[in-house]
Amino acid sequence: MDLLPDAPHRRLNRLTGEWVLVSPHRTARPWQGQIEETTPEKRPEYDPSCYLCPGNTRAGGVKTPVYDSTYVFDNDFAALLPDAAKGGVDDGLLVARPERGICRVVCFSPRHDLTLGGMSQPALRTVVDTWAEQTASLGAIDWVGHVQVFENRGSMMGASNPHPHGQIWATESVPNEPAKELAQQAAYDGDCLLCDYLAAELSDGSRVVDSNEHYVSLVPFWAVWPFETLVLPRSHHGSLTDLDGAERDGLADVLGKVTRRYDRLFGVTFPYSMGFHQRPTDGSEHPRAHLHAHFYPPLLRSATVRKFMVGFELLAQPQRDITPESAAQRLRELDND
Amino acid sequence: MDLLPDAPHRRLNRLTGEWVLVSPHRTARPWQGQIEETTPEKRPEYDPSCYLCPGNTRAGGVKTPVYDSTYVFDNDFAALLPDAAKGGVDDGLLVARPERGICRVVCFSPRHDLTLGGMSQPALRTVVDTWAEQTASLGAIDWVGHVQVFENRGSMMGASNPHPHGQIWATESVPNEPAKELAQQAAYDGDCLLCDYLAAELSDGSRVVDSNEHYVSLVPFWAVWPFETLVLPRSHHGSLTDLDGAERDGLADVLGKVTRRYDRLFGVTFPYSMGFHQRPTDGSEHPRAHLHAHFYPPLLRSATVRKFMVGFELLAQPQRDITPESAAQRLRELDND
Ligand SMILES: O=P(O)(O)O[C@H]1O[C@H](CO)[C@@H](O)[C@H](O)[C@H]1O
Ligand SMILES: O=P(O)(O)O[C@H]1O[C@H](CO)[C@@H](O)[C@H](O)[C@H]1O
Repeated sequence: MDLLPDAPHRRLNRLTGEWVLVSPHRTARPWQGQIEETTPEKRPEYDPSCYLCPGNTRAGGVKTPVYDSTYVFDNDFAALLPDAAKGGVDDGLLVARPERGICRVVCFSPRHDLTLGGMSQPALRTVVDTWAEQTASLGAIDWVGHVQVFENRGSMMGASNPHPHGQIWATESVPNEPAKELAQQAAYDGDCLLCDYLAAELSDGSRVVDSNEHYVSLVPFWAVWPFETLVLPRSHHGSLTDLDGAERDGLADVLGKVTRRYDRLFGVTFPYSMGFHQRPTDGSEHPRAHLHAHFYPPLLRSATVRKFMVGFELLAQPQRDITPESAAQRLRELDND
Repeated sequence: MDLLPDAPHRRLNRLTGEWVLVSPHRTARPWQGQIEETTPEKRPEYDPSCYLCPGNTRAGGVKTPVYDSTYVFDNDFAALLPDAAKGGVDDGLLVARPERGICRVVCFSPRHDLTLGGMSQPALRTVVDTWAEQTASLGAIDWVGHVQVFENRGSMMGASNPHPHGQIWATESVPNEPAKELAQQAAYDGDCLLCDYLAAELSDGSRVVDSNEHYVSLVPFWAVWPFETLVLPRSHHGSLTDLDGAERDGLADVLGKVTRRYDRLFGVTFPYSMGFHQRPTDGSEHPRAHLHAHFYPPLLRSATVRKFMVGFELLAQPQRDITPESAAQRLRELDND
């Protein structure tokens, strides 16, 4: 890059059209703020008090069956409901609309002590298949316009249970973030923004973390979170449902690799939110949507010092200290197996 | 509003053009996740180890003078630097530009134990005057395009020191968030979006928290954070520098009131990020920009249970449980003096 290597600069997120401030000179800043607790790492394979462990009782007395692979159920405290509501308001200033949705929980494994990175390749592949099946079946419901697959991992990221699990929220309308990305992809002056971007990253190499025949993970040029990564297929696909068997294996492989690198970075189960952006299921074609996953991990310098997205970030613009290139380099230096 | 009162819905943030999901039925959800620490509330008036207390030594051996009102200095670990950098890159996919800036710290009071809500009206007025002076002097620098005044309060919001202080980051370019709001204000089909919005809120009344002759605080119809508020002048002003003496007193009064209500809500110094959005100083007129402050406090149910903006929120769209109307009512029920 043609910038003074240590000079503060901003980078454009081509997927959202928004900017991020980069302050490479600021890594010397001492930290006097909040220190996060590290949670004890040893968990039992089965926890009798965990409502996601096989055979245990959930809220409202429902019993979790004895499952041996993945297990999906409707969230007991869903933020959205499938019933159609009437009404709404729109006077040009106050605008509200009813919103239907379905919120599901996806247990990745019956084992309480596992994480994505600790699961076998076949087990990870089953998780990928489950996400794809859920995308297909939820997306097939006539009023479902968008399916958001995601995982919150770690108490720092609001996860209330360490049992390996993620969520799926299917909504009527396309939410803000995918809508922004779809608009940028649609406006792109070429066939596919992410196909071209991936080609540019592969030829540069400085931000690539892992790759196999079908899939690549990299720290995006416009990363906001310190060790943010973007995981994307080499071929142009819009949805998890479009991936063939070999591509699903490729995705499972890269997901395992990136999460193992994360866990080795500071020697703790690395907290993050991750999720997939796929083609909406709103009836339009969206031929330019390129399937991808974002990992947003908050840790900055150690297991206990995180990046806060606060004042300037909330009110003005995200800001980061270490460069995406140095984050990628640090991740690459760790083992991925 | 014409919605089923308990039905999930989405509301449009007219200032940014983005949506927020509202799940009023979800308040029964039990909390099993992270419990925040509450920091001991009793602080000394002077702390010999605090680098913001009068007479103490900062990073790099600089001495904080013995000040008796507000005190402003350049951040020792500034995220931005005033030197012009050369270079940049733009191949249509990788886009980066050098960014100049000035980062300042504003001590609100020499007293280590105070907060905005605990300061006298004249002392709060001095803080308002300091923000206005800084806006004027930073904005007068030819390359400064935008002045962001903000405060991170509480370790939960990344503040590394409890001494009452805020920050000001002046940048060359207009950051994402104000840029979005300015675009919505410019596109508004009327004279001023926020003048009309304020009139609608005052006539409805259900979201108004405090008001005086010149200033109003309210929970916006599109609030994202559980007890988010918007503070705005009744008259159309674009910047803190445009407020006359009576209006500055009005702002100081409302700031004191809203922060005292916050501190009483859960019986702790309420953590938040707050900041002002004002007219950019980029040489354009921005006649439609209406000055306002946003308060973004994370606490949801108690001093120890916060709202996490994670998975769905980061990847898709913000989601809230209690309605803005019930948040406003709870704030109004508390004392403001
Ligand atoms: O400058 P401080 O107070 O050290 O840092 C705090 O505020 C900054 C501006 O919002 C953020 O970038 C940091 O993440 C936060 O910890
Ligand atoms: O549904 P959970 O795991 O209880 O809740 C978690 O994830 C949700 C979706 O990102 C968020 O809205 C909550 O703030 C968070 O605590």
